[in-house]
This record gives sequence, C-alpha cells and structure tokens, in this order.
Amino acid sequence: MSATADRLHAGELDTAELFGALEDPALNSMNFLNEISSRYPDAISLAAGRPVEQFFEIDSLDRYLRRFCRHLEEDLGYSPAEVRRTLFQYGRTKGVLHGLIAANLARDEGISVDPEAIVVTVGCQEAMFLVLRALRTGPSDVLLAVTPTYVGLTGAARLVEMPVLPVAAGPGGVDLDDLERRIRAARAAGLRPRACYVMPDFANPSGVSMDLADRRRLLAMAAAEGILLLEDNPYGLFPHADEQRRPTLKALDEQRTVVYLGSFAKTAMPGVRTGYLVADQPVTDAAGNRGLLADQLSKIKSMLTVNTSPITQAIVGGKLLENDHSLLRANERERAVYTANMRQMVAGLAARFPDPGLGVSYNVPVGGFFVVVTVPFEVDDALLERSAADYGVLWTAMHHFYEPGVPVHALRLSCSTVTPEQIEAGLDRLARLVYDQLGQHRPG
Amino acid sequence: MSATADRLHAGELDTAELFGALEDPALNSMNFLNEISSRYPDAISLAAGRPVEQFFEIDSLDRYLRRFCRHLEEDLGYSPAEVRRTLFQYGRTKGVLHGLIAANLARDEGISVDPEAIVVTVGCQEAMFLVLRALRTGPSDVLLAVTPTYVGLTGAARLVEMPVLPVAAGPGGVDLDDLERRIRAARAAGLRPRACYVMPDFANPSGVSMDLADRRRLLAMAAAEGILLLEDNPYGLFPHADEQRRPTLKALDEQRTVVYLGSFAKTAMPGVRTGYLVADQPVTDAAGNRGLLADQLSKIKSMLTVNTSPITQAIVGGKLLENDHSLLRANERERAVYTANMRQMVAGLAARFPDPGLGVSYNVPVGGFFVVVTVPFEVDDALLERSAADYGVLWTAMHHFYEPGVPVHALRLSCSTVTPEQIEAGLDRLARLVYDQLGQHRPG
Repeated sequence: MSATADRLHAGELDTAELFGALEDPALNSMNFLNEISSRYPDAISLAAGRPVEQFFEIDSLDRYLRRFCRHLEEDLGYSPAEVRRTLFQYGRTKGVLHGLIAANLARDEGISVDPEAIVVTVGCQEAMFLVLRALRTGPSDVLLAVTPTYVGLTGAARLVEMPVLPVAAGPGGVDLDDLERRIRAARAAGLRPRACYVMPDFANPSGVSMDLADRRRLLAMAAAEGILLLEDNPYGLFPHADEQRRPTLKALDEQRTVVYLGSFAKTAMPGVRTGYLVADQPVTDAAGNRGLLADQLSKIKSMLTVNTSPITQAIVGGKLLENDHSLLRANERERAVYTANMRQMVAGLAARFPDPGLGVSYNVPVGGFFVVVTVPFEVDDALLERSAADYGVLWTAMHHFYEPGVPVHALRLSCSTVTPEQIEAGLDRLARLVYDQLGQHRPG
Repeated sequence: MSATADRLHAGELDTAELFGALEDPALNSMNFLNEISSRYPDAISLAAGRPVEQFFEIDSLDRYLRRFCRHLEEDLGYSPAEVRRTLFQYGRTKGVLHGLIAANLARDEGISVDPEAIVVTVGCQEAMFLVLRALRTGPSDVLLAVTPTYVGLTGAARLVEMPVLPVAAGPGGVDLDDLERRIRAARAAGLRPRACYVMPDFANPSGVSMDLADRRRLLAMAAAEGILLLEDNPYGLFPHADEQRRPTLKALDEQRTVVYLGSFAKTAMPGVRTGYLVADQPVTDAAGNRGLLADQLSKIKSMLTVNTSPITQAIVGGKLLENDHSLLRANERERAVYTANMRQMVAGLAARFPDPGLGVSYNVPVGGFFVVVTVPFEVDDALLERSAADYGVLWTAMHHFYEPGVPVHALRLSCSTVTPEQIEAGLDRLARLVYDQLGQHRPG
C-alpha cells in the first residue's frame, strides 16, 4: 500500500492491494445480513427492513408507466417522439420527476421547494453518497451521526473516507447536549464538522421519533454551529393508523440548514431504485456565480450514474399521478398492515417476557418497521447464526449500527414483511433462544 | 479548506467549502455538453453520442418485462410470488441478469465467464467508479488512459481523487511504446500504476480501433507490468455492415488482466441505465479466503446504489431473450443506419473539403458513431457557441477529452441520431463555419 512502486500480479490480487475500507465491517454488514437469510431460507425472518409484499402487482408497472407518459403528453405538451425520447434516451441529470416530487412534498409534507433544488437519485443511497462526496474536501471534514446509525450512511461515508463521529441518541432520538459537545470537541481537535445525519421519524434501527421541541432545537443548533442536517425520511409516512404525524425538519427549515434525503423504496417499491434529495442551499462559485447545491451534486451524479433511469422514474411518477401526488393516500393499506403487525409484535413480546426482573425490555414505537429488544447478554453475529440454525428465526444484531468493538446487548425486529402467524411463531422461537441464553425456562 | 476549524454558514455555501473537483473542467464537461444543446434546440446536432431513436417503442418495455418474468418462471422455476419479489423488492447486489449476460458474452463475443464474476451496474459509469474506488488505496495509485479519453472515465477518477496519466494513442489506438514509458516513468516517480483504461473498438471520441497484433501486445505488456486493463466496449457491436469484428481484449485474456466494462446503452437503450462489469480476478483477503474481484466491487456497490433496478434489468433481459441472447442480432437495423450514416458523413466531408492544402482532415472509422475532423485552428467552447448561435450546428470540441490547458485543433462529429438530410445540412453549416474561420470561400 502507500507509496510502494512494487509490481503487482494484476490477475491475482489480495485485499491489501485494494481500497482499505473493503476490510471494514461497515462495508460487510449489508452483504452479511443478506447472505445469512439466503443460507437459512426456512427461518422466519424478523430481520429484513423491507416493505410488505402482498400488494405487489406486475400489471401495475405498465399502468404506471403509461400514466406518466400521458402526463408528459397532456400536462406538459410533449409530442409522442419526445415521450419516447424521455423514456429511452439519455436525459436530464437531475431527473424528470422533479415537478411531481415537489407536488408530493407539498401535499404530504407541507414542504414547499423549487423543483430545480431536487436531484432524483438511484435510491436514497446514492443521495447520501452525493452529499458526502460534496462535503468532504479533505481529511479534516467529518460527519456526525446519531447512534445507532443506519449502515448505509456509514458505508457511504467510508467510500469518501469521511469519519463519522457518533452522537448519543438519548430517549428522544438525538441527545442535543451530546451533539453540541461533540461538535465542539471535534473543532477543538482541528476537525471541521460539516453535517449531522439524522432520521427523525421511526428511525432505522431504533424506531424512535423526535418530538417537535427537539426538532426546533436541533434546527437552531445546526444554524448556530454552521453545520448542515442530513434528514433521512424513509418511514415518515408510516405512523400507526391513529397516530399524528410530526413535521419533518425540512418543513420547519427556515435557514436552509436541511438537505432532505427522500426514498421511494418503502412508499412505491424498492425495485425502482429511485430516491431523491432536496438541496436548496445557495452556492457561490469562484467566479461569483450563484446556483444551488443541487446543481453541484448533479455534477457528481453525472460522473457516478449519469442519470436515474427515466423508466423507473416514470413508474414512480405514475403511482404519484394515480394518487393525486399523495403517497400517504397510496399507502393506506400498507400502513394498516404495519400498524397491526407492530401492535401484535409488541403485545407478543409483553406476553412472552412478562417479568421485568428478567432484564428483557423493548421499545414501543408509534410507527415505522422496527422494534428494538434489549437483553442482558451480548448479541453478536455468532448468536444470530445459532438463532437461525437451531431456533429457525432471523433478526438483526444491533451492533451493526454502532462503531465496531463495543459489545451491544440488543437486537432489532422488523414487522413489515411477515404475516400474523409468522410473528407469533417467530416470537416463540426468539423467546426460546432468549430463555435458553438466560438458562431459564419460559414461564407459563 | 484543509484543517480549518472555521464555522460555516451552512445554509449559504461557496464552492471553496465543497469538494475541489467540483471546479474541475472534467466534472463540468458532461453538463456543458448537455446544456448547450438545450440552449440551441433548433441547431442540427452532430454532437450527441446517442443511439438512433427511430426504433424506440413504448410497447416493447412491457413486452420485454413479461418475457423476463416468463423466463424466471419457466427456465428458473420461480413461483409467481418469487417473480413479483424479484422485480419489486430489494435484491441481489450483483444483479439478477448475470446468467443472461454470460450467455450474451458467449454468443456475441466468444467470452466464457462465470456468471458470479459479473456485477450488474447502474450503467457503465457506475462500473468505472466501482473499479477505480477499489484500486485507489492511497495517493500513489494512478490510472493510465489512452488520450483522447472518454470524459466519464476522467470524471469517475476525479471522484476517487485518482490521477489519470495520459498515454498517446498513435494511429493504432494505443501507442504501446508510450504506454511502457509512462508506466516506468510513473514507477520512477514513486507512483503505482494500477490499470490502463482503453476502448479498443471504435473508441469514443477517436473512432479508432486496435488491430489484433496490438491487442495481443497490450495484453502481454499488462501482464508483464502487473497492471489491469479496463476494457470499455460500448460500440463493439457496431462495425460497418460488411466489416469484420475483432476479438475483445477479454476474449483474448488468458491471465485475467482484463476487467471488462459492458454497456447496454447503445445495444438496448440508454434509459435502462443498466451496464455491467466482468471482474474474474481472484482476490485473497487478510484471513486467506479467496473470492472474486466482482465480490469486492459488489461490497462497494452495496453502499453506493444497493442494487441495480431489477425492473430495468428485466427489460434488458427480455430483449436478450427475444433475440436468442444476441445483441448483434437485436441491432441489425441500427447497425445498418450507423453504417449508412457514417459513410454519408465521410463522403460529405470529402465533397466539402476536397483540397488537402486547406489543412482540414478527418479519419475514416470502420464502425461506431464518431468521426474526428482536424482543422488548422484551435477548437474551443467559444467556437462551438458561435457555431450553434450563428451557423446552427452543434458538434463536440475535442479538448474535453484531453488534459486541460493544451490547445486542441479537432472536433468530433457523431452520425448516430441524425437523418440523411440532417447530415447534409449539418455538414453544409459546418463547412461554412470552417471556411469562415479560414477566411476563405467554400469552393464550388
């Protein structure tokens, strides 16, 4: 590595000759979690953060596509040749769905945004990469992220070699005092905190949401400290059926401190691999020209993926058009499933772990996909392997969402792609594992 | 920049606070070239390296999709629920098209490859990024690239901060003596050349192809010098109708020195944003486990775009299945158009610039999309702007494909998306511009 001039055997490599982060646990998490489910196909999976599958219909794809084409012709005045060119040819780097996304954000989130500030991306994952690549100018630039942190954020940061400094979550989602201390400690160490990554609604993996007062205080702190907030919002449309939604940070953002990261994976379908970002921050270049951060990010995108497939954008567009721009409306059935499933899961945990003296506890989120179970023993991948092989149940070890090396005593359960019967059977299996670990018999 | 602890005004940035490459001409080329065509929509464009549009059919998308679904059910034994899950849900990081791509490479290219060595990517652009990110371990790692170089390669290298050392093209596509000198000079300077990027067939932008002897010599040199060859092959299926195709480097690769970069943009459609790479190099990790370079690249992909849309993969898959895995067969009509168009363009240049004393010359490629015209004056973007505004014709200034700062006296013409009438009118306009620049009247 480093400045060696050694001649390699190019056709036969070892990882020491490749990017160092390839040996980093963060880059292996995603693959490990996928790989274990494929090795135990008969285990009940309470692991995957995937949307419910029962409403998927192959026929809808062509219907959405044609609905978007009609929109191009009837609403935007495209000729048939222009419609074909839009779908088949290379296209606008920032995407062709910006108008409909702006309409959706106004309708579902009360966010008013210039469509030119939107970049349609290859899923939210690419959006994270674009922002981090733009913000990382050198080794002193660092990112803050609320711990536990979504592994995709950590992985994207590794790709641009940007350190991620952990911030405590506290009971409210972000420990704001800790955030302030971390920012100041980083500055004192000669580092430049550029942004803080946060998932304010039904976070992955914690399930926790921030309250309104904390949202406002976080915005004020970011503005005062001169850092951006990267707001990731994949689950915000899934509060339980009778719960109120809270405004996103972006809806409350008066000083443009928020870059909003949007995903259609849970609200349309993961298979479109279509997400977006809103980056309405003005940027002045060396010549004094003013533009938007979105345009800078679009330059990076042009060299990463050129543009997001207009075909998958059209599918999302058709779904938005069929639902009057509202994904909240489009997901009523899905939301009912997630509500029922999570309530059943929480009730099932209460029934199986009635004794507080056991040291087994769990949170009770009011939306999203995830419940975190805390246990009085370390939860690592070896335990997961045993759980899959000997007990037939999969879940996610929470240590993947923390810095490596710290023992973590918690696991994440997902309620989004299972049936009521699978929830009961999965919890039975999990309870057997936990009581066996504790050396106790399950009561009752 | 660097180690400053300054507090920024996060909601109001300037480019000095962003990734330095954003001010690099390489990152602006793609956007500049798109933007000028949108500002002069009435100009005849001999600029865009885009496939012919006349065969695009919206109906084909659903037909391809259903053909691929039938393949999953009938050939691979998927249940209807598994088919829906494959299209709609998160999926395999390396993609679901690997079997069909391997069949296509065997059929059209005589390349025999393990499907596990294939990573399906978001266009060839992502494939370039994945390879460069993996090979860049530190500041001493450098890439070599034949000049003039495709701007997308230069841009991807900028994103990972990997220097690109230019190699002379010579008349045969790669000046192999210059390549050897450059490798040795780099080593003498303490650098570590990791790979050489080359487009052996009908290169963008030069139009030039390597002969068989040079291909073999390049492979031997790469193996001897311990560098990989990154073979980019977007135009290889488009030799003129009566021309012989030559074997790709990958087809001749006996020592796994070639990482093959595949694109479906010209052979299926750009709108699918689906490409792939073949990376069958064995890699040994720190624990002594052996795998394929493809698996290392897939870890990077999992943190960049998660996976390529299975819907767009299905569309490509359907087109492959409809054509017995042959894209050569699928593109017979397209190939006839490109052949006729380029021959007309070359004849049109001969008719308009008959006097060799003028100093205007052009190459005569035997396939692909591009002809390079060399003129006795500098060709810059200001001249292109004048050409668009005053003469109504667009082309591409060749300086975008060279290191900045060197005056370039050439322009690239593309024959792929124009009608015969547009070729004649476009060349008339170009000839007026050239003769005006030379201060001469056009003869005849």
